[in-house]
Formats: sequence, C-alpha cells, structure tokens
Amino acid sequence: MPRLAPLSGFPEWLPEGRIVEKHVIDVFSRVAESHGFTGIETRAVEPISELARKGEIDKELYVLSRLQADPDEAESTDPSKQLGLHFDLTVPLARYVLEHAGHLLFPFKRYQVQKVWRGERPQDGRFREFYQADLDVIGDGALPAHYDAELPLVMAETLSALPLPGFEVRVNNRKVAEGFYRGLGFADHTEVLRIVDKLPKIGPEKVGELLVAETDATPEMVEKVLAMAQIRTGDLSFRDRVEELGVESALLSEGLDELAAVIAACAAERPGQVVADLSIARGLDYYTGTVYETFVVGHESLGSICSGGRYDTLATDGKRTYPGVGMSIGLSRLVSRLLTVPLATVTRSVPAAVLVAVTSEETRPQSAAVAAALRGRGIPVETAPTAAKFGKQIRYADRRGIPYVWFPDEGQVKDIRSGEQVDADASTWECPAEDLHPRVVPAAPTA
Amino acid sequence: MPRLAPLSGFPEWLPEGRIVEKHVIDVFSRVAESHGFTGIETRAVEPISELARKGEIDKELYVLSRLQADPDEAESTDPSKQLGLHFDLTVPLARYVLEHAGHLLFPFKRYQVQKVWRGERPQDGRFREFYQADLDVIGDGALPAHYDAELPLVMAETLSALPLPGFEVRVNNRKVAEGFYRGLGFADHTEVLRIVDKLPKIGPEKVGELLVAETDATPEMVEKVLAMAQIRTGDLSFRDRVEELGVESALLSEGLDELAAVIAACAAERPGQVVADLSIARGLDYYTGTVYETFVVGHESLGSICSGGRYDTLATDGKRTYPGVGMSIGLSRLVSRLLTVPLATVTRSVPAAVLVAVTSEETRPQSAAVAAALRGRGIPVETAPTAAKFGKQIRYADRRGIPYVWFPDEGQVKDIRSGEQVDADASTWECPAEDLHPRVVPAAPTA
Repeated sequence: MPRLAPLSGFPEWLPEGRIVEKHVIDVFSRVAESHGFTGIETRAVEPISELARKGEIDKELYVLSRLQADPDEAESTDPSKQLGLHFDLTVPLARYVLEHAGHLLFPFKRYQVQKVWRGERPQDGRFREFYQADLDVIGDGALPAHYDAELPLVMAETLSALPLPGFEVRVNNRKVAEGFYRGLGFADHTEVLRIVDKLPKIGPEKVGELLVAETDATPEMVEKVLAMAQIRTGDLSFRDRVEELGVESALLSEGLDELAAVIAACAAERPGQVVADLSIARGLDYYTGTVYETFVVGHESLGSICSGGRYDTLATDGKRTYPGVGMSIGLSRLVSRLLTVPLATVTRSVPAAVLVAVTSEETRPQSAAVAAALRGRGIPVETAPTAAKFGKQIRYADRRGIPYVWFPDEGQVKDIRSGEQVDADASTWECPAEDLHPRVVPAAPTA
Repeated sequence: MPRLAPLSGFPEWLPEGRIVEKHVIDVFSRVAESHGFTGIETRAVEPISELARKGEIDKELYVLSRLQADPDEAESTDPSKQLGLHFDLTVPLARYVLEHAGHLLFPFKRYQVQKVWRGERPQDGRFREFYQADLDVIGDGALPAHYDAELPLVMAETLSALPLPGFEVRVNNRKVAEGFYRGLGFADHTEVLRIVDKLPKIGPEKVGELLVAETDATPEMVEKVLAMAQIRTGDLSFRDRVEELGVESALLSEGLDELAAVIAACAAERPGQVVADLSIARGLDYYTGTVYETFVVGHESLGSICSGGRYDTLATDGKRTYPGVGMSIGLSRLVSRLLTVPLATVTRSVPAAVLVAVTSEETRPQSAAVAAALRGRGIPVETAPTAAKFGKQIRYADRRGIPYVWFPDEGQVKDIRSGEQVDADASTWECPAEDLHPRVVPAAPTA
C-alpha cells in the first residue's frame, strides 16, 4: 500500500483534534437538548432533483453512481432517482418534515450534527467535506416570533462555552432591507441585497460603484444604502438611526418591529453577544424575515461561523406549509481554526486516566482485575501492553499524557507528573475530577 | 415540493428512534473509552484505487462525481484520483495509520463510529447507508496476543449494556481451520473456508455436496470438516474434541493454543458470553488468526451483528508493517432490530423534563427566567410555544411525554402523570434522576 498524500478539502484530525471536535459537538448537543431540541439525523443522500432546487448551488453537488451499476437501472439518468450527497442540513430537514409530518409534533425543535459535502475548490477554512451543526424550529402553518430570539440565544450559549476570544451574533431582518430599498425607490431589491452582501469583501466604495452600474441607484440612494449598512448597535438605537435616514415604508416598520423584539429579548439575557447589524444580507438564500451571521472577535476574516434565518416556507406539500427559523454552525471551519491558531488544546490524547502496570504476562489477570475495579467506578483505564520494565511502562503513560500508573503488586498508584507514589485500593481510590477525562482547554498564547 | 417516497436502503429514524441509536453509540463510545480506546473519524471518501483492493467488494462501491466538473480535471478517469464512499471503516483505518503513523502512538487503540455506504440491493437489515462501530488495536511491527481477548470482552461489555435478550460472541482462529484442512489433505484451504462459511445459510448437507463438487474432498474429509464445524464450547474442551478427530498439523496446534488463550481469558471475565465456535469462517476477509462473529439469542437470522478478526498486515508501507485486531458492530442493523421488534423503547421523544408554562406573551421573560434557572442546574427545559390556556399547554407536554409543567405565577410544578402539584423554587427544585433525560428501556413484550 503506497503512502498517500492527504486529500485537499477533506480534513481529518489526529486523536487530539478529534477530542476537540467531539467536545464542540457535545457542547452544542448538550446546550440544544437543555433547551428542548431533539436530535435527528437524515440520510446523507437526496435525489438530485431536490438538491438542485436552490439555483446557484448545483455546480457544487457530488453525484453518486455505482461502480458497476446495472445498465437497466434508471438511477443514472432520472434526476428524481439519481442521488447526490447533501450540501447542507436544511434541504434534508425540509424533506424529512414533509415525509414524516404525520409522526412529528409541532413546533418541531430539532438539532442535527452531520457531515455535508460540497465539490467546491478547497481554500483556507473551506472544505469539501465538513460538519454542520444545525438548530431549527419548524411550525405547522404558523411559528411564533419569539423563536427568532431563542435561536441566537441558544447559539450564543454554545459559543460562550467554547475557547473563543469572543463572538458577536449579528442580526438583521429581510423586511428592513427590502422595505428600506423599496422605500428608497429601488425597483429590484434582491439585486441591491446581492450587491450589499459583498460589503465585507469589497468595501463600501466598490459596493457603491456596483449599485450605480447594475441597478437604478442615484448617488443619494447609494449614500443611504451605505449609511444603513453601517448601522450596528447592541441596543434598540438602530431604530432611531434608520429613521434619521428618512425612508418610510410599512414593510420597513414591520421589519424594525421584528428586529427590535429579537434584540430586546437577547440583550436582556446575553448583553453584547447579539447585536443588530443592518448590513447582514445573507446573499441569495431565501430568507423572509430575521437573518443571522456570527463572527469570532479577531477572526472576522474566517467569515460567519454561524448563520441562518427565518423561512416563511421551509417546506410545503401544497396543502400545509411549514415555516421555520434556523441557524447553522460551520463546525469544521470553527474546529479547524481552534486547532490551527491554536485556540484550544487537550490535556491528553487518550481517554485513560490510569495505566495499570503488568509485572509479568502470568499476572496480567491481576492487573486486569485492578483495571476492571477502577473502570467499574467510572475511571477510564488501560492495562500495559507488555510486561516491560516499569520504566518503560511509565514512559508509555507519559508519552500519552496518562497521569497515573498503578502497580498491582505494590498496591500503589504513582502520579507520574509529581512522582508521588501512595498506597491505594482500586475499590476506593478517587481520581481527581480534572484528571478523569481529557479536557479541552484554551491554548497558551504562542510567542 | 412534492411528497417523496422513502428511499429503500437509506434508513432514517423518527426522534424516538434516533434517541435509541444515539444511546447505542454513546454506550459503545463510553465503554471503549473506559478501556482506553481513542475516538477518531476519517473522511467519508477514499480513492477508488484503495477501495477496490478487496476483490469482491468493488461492485458495491458508490463513486462520486461533480455535477458540473471541469472537463480538464483528471478526477473522473484516474482511479487514484477518483473518489468513492468508504464501505467499511477498516480500509480507511489502514490508510489513516499509514498517513499519520509519525503522529500516532502504538499500540494504537482506536474506536470509530461512522456511516458507511454500499450499493447493494437493500434487504431486511441490509442497508445502503448504515452506521458501523469499530474497535481496533494496531501495533507497529508486532501486536501482543492478549488484545485478541480484550476486543471481544469490550464488545461483550457494550452489548451487555443494551436491551438485548442475550448474545454470544463466537470465536475461531484461521490457523485452526487452515491447519485442520491442510492436515486433512486439502490442497486449497481457502476454497474449503469459502464453502464452510455458507453453513448457516445452506446447512451441512449442501456444504458437504459443495465440498465434493468443488474441492478435492473425499467423503471422510467431508465428514471431518463438518464434524469440526459442529464444535462449539464455552470452555477449553473444544481442544479435546478437535484432537479426537485425529488430524494433526503444527499450524492447527498453534491455532488451538491461540484460541484457547482467548477463550480462557474471556471465560474468566465474562463466562458464557464468549465461546469457541469452530464453524466461524468469515468468508473471504483477509484475517490471519482469531476471527469473531456475534449473534443475538433468538435473532440468529439477523446474521452476525459484531464481527472481525486479526490481520497480521492491516497496513504496510513496504518498510513498516502494522498488524491489527478489530471488531465491528453493524450498528444500524442492530438498532433497526431494536426498533422494529421492538426490543427497546424510550421514556419520551423530547429532551425536556419540564415545560415552563407562559401566562401571557408579556410575562414570557419571567417564564424564560425560570427555564434558565432550571437549565443552569442541568435540567432540560422547554418554554411553552404560546400563551395558550393552561389545559392546552399541559396537553403540549403530555403529547411529548414531558413529565413536569411549571407555573411561574403560582411558583408551582405539576407532575402531569400523577396530577400532583406542589410549591417549588427553580433554584432548588430537584428533578428525579429517572425523569431528567429520555431513557432507553426494554420494550414491553407485545401480545
């Protein structure tokens, strides 16, 4: 088997990295469950006809074929039978809700952590295979507005529990943007949205040029679009600043009311973590109200690590309509940043807190009995691989960061960090809580 | 969006089913970690050239292509660049070990739970997308024999913690079979292995006929092959029974020694759960010593739910060789059986233990504050979706199996199962441990 080069765009972590990734998944899942969200998984494949609905994305799809498919199978030509890998967890959720609606209870609060695939050209933080962690609430016919505040609060609670230097969930409302652009006199607000979405990449000057070149914008309209996009407040003062721009429309007022409700509820619970940002556009996604993006302080170039919004029509079967509001963490991108800066590290690379030494292969059962006694009390344990000299067994533990070595013959346990060795009984010895499992901790600042 | 038919072979669970599936994954992971196994994940794709190594499997591969691939990319023609979905977790492990060997510590004890894909025709319990849960120990150059006993013990501990009617890990050794067949005078022992592997499906008579038709077997040889395949013992008596058949070879003796060591170690720790079964062949897999299969008592028709064995050469880069021993649970197949019999059920379908009632939208913040206080003490909580009449809010909880409804105005909590309502303080109220999270419990026997 020849040595293989890593596949670009398909990240794979060493055991330490996987501990960090699993920690992030566990924190997200625990917080989501504590707020009553149910975990589901959907199959990795969907019919191409479903996946290709969202205009722009189809060029990024991975299509499946069987290496030796039967020629008489329709799989390869009929797009409703041809399968592709899902590129997000929203399209599958919509399909899952329609397919299982009769067995689900609404509002359906679900979380979902799975890998998704996109055939994009890989770049820093852009992968072809990556984890998304999604949180959505789906209503049957209607969905109360307070969920628009609950979602960023749950996500902020998750992100607060991770070793990040800080973050900001930025919220806007499509109705604010649409109402404002229409009130200003634009004929096609989606074109304006698409161009304003480029702000972080190309800056206000270029956005202004594009608006003039590609829309019916006058210089005054450009000025007001850019002025509104600069409004970012942690409190409700965004409202006054919009009103100062002198644009009026019913839709704008409705959007400002909705945005104010979200910001007021979030500011009460998590001041400073959720702010109104009137530049947030979310490109061509089909959101109809609240939209979210999230940036890590000092890592804004990473792009949004947690985005989403409200869909009035997440799914519909023609008779019933299911509105939804959701947010999705780009989990692999976040983990990749945690590992490469690094922002996070682990206290050891293996689960075992104790290595039970083995004096000879004949007495291995005695070592195994000590290990079983410790394990039965919730302490992860390895038994030494060979009856090597104790010095070698201690090195085995040391290289893995296993803090304790147990000597069954002596009935003693050694903390190999301090060298302290004490009498111990496997049925009563207490492993210090901080040593019980590998812990994810903030990385020490590098020079 | 039209209503879609489920995709055959791509199972998807309702929330209750996912709770059972996650429980099985969690039990497996917890037991594996308690024995010092480190969790890893590998990418879902491998080059076709790697996946197609194992002869027979290539017809089942799913190959990826991009819907709109650049024609100048080599992806679609070069099999070392063309990607397929992995069909097991062993081929990826071998590649991972070679690729990252310089960063891993050996023996490398790893567990891995991921979906795998096979383009087979779906049948009962045979899926096209399914979870495997793998446990392997990989050595660098050499791997001590005691791991051959550790693996079935860890798997038996996992299976014992699940709501199964009972199970049996059956162990054999390739050297026993090969030594016996060669000692009997067979020229090609792999042909015999391949035919004996069909025993559970076609029975001894047909196996005998195939041996005569397709190998150089005499009637006496057939008789002895079938006699050996009938030996199944929970203790070391299998050895005498093999010796009674009067076949001798050095390889047979070596295999019997290895098998005896595994059975002796397992019988000491888990009597009756791990037995010697000299019919276990493991088809065409490239095992070189110990082999395992596992059957659920009363569900033998399901086939083996946990199989594996020892490879002398899991991976090699020409210079270094990495022997391994591993077992893999067909987790989706097992979960599917738990859900459809059913053998397992859940105490509720949502994580929340408490629903905090909402008296009016104006007082929603007070309800949210109670919810936050409970959540801060580790109790999963939902806040009511609307300020409906309390009767409706109680029905919301009841339909989801949420056991408690909290009334913030009254400062009371109601156990909606008993109807008992008591004064309570969110900063001190204790949720009974059995109500804290949904629990997976054995299903009541159906009539």
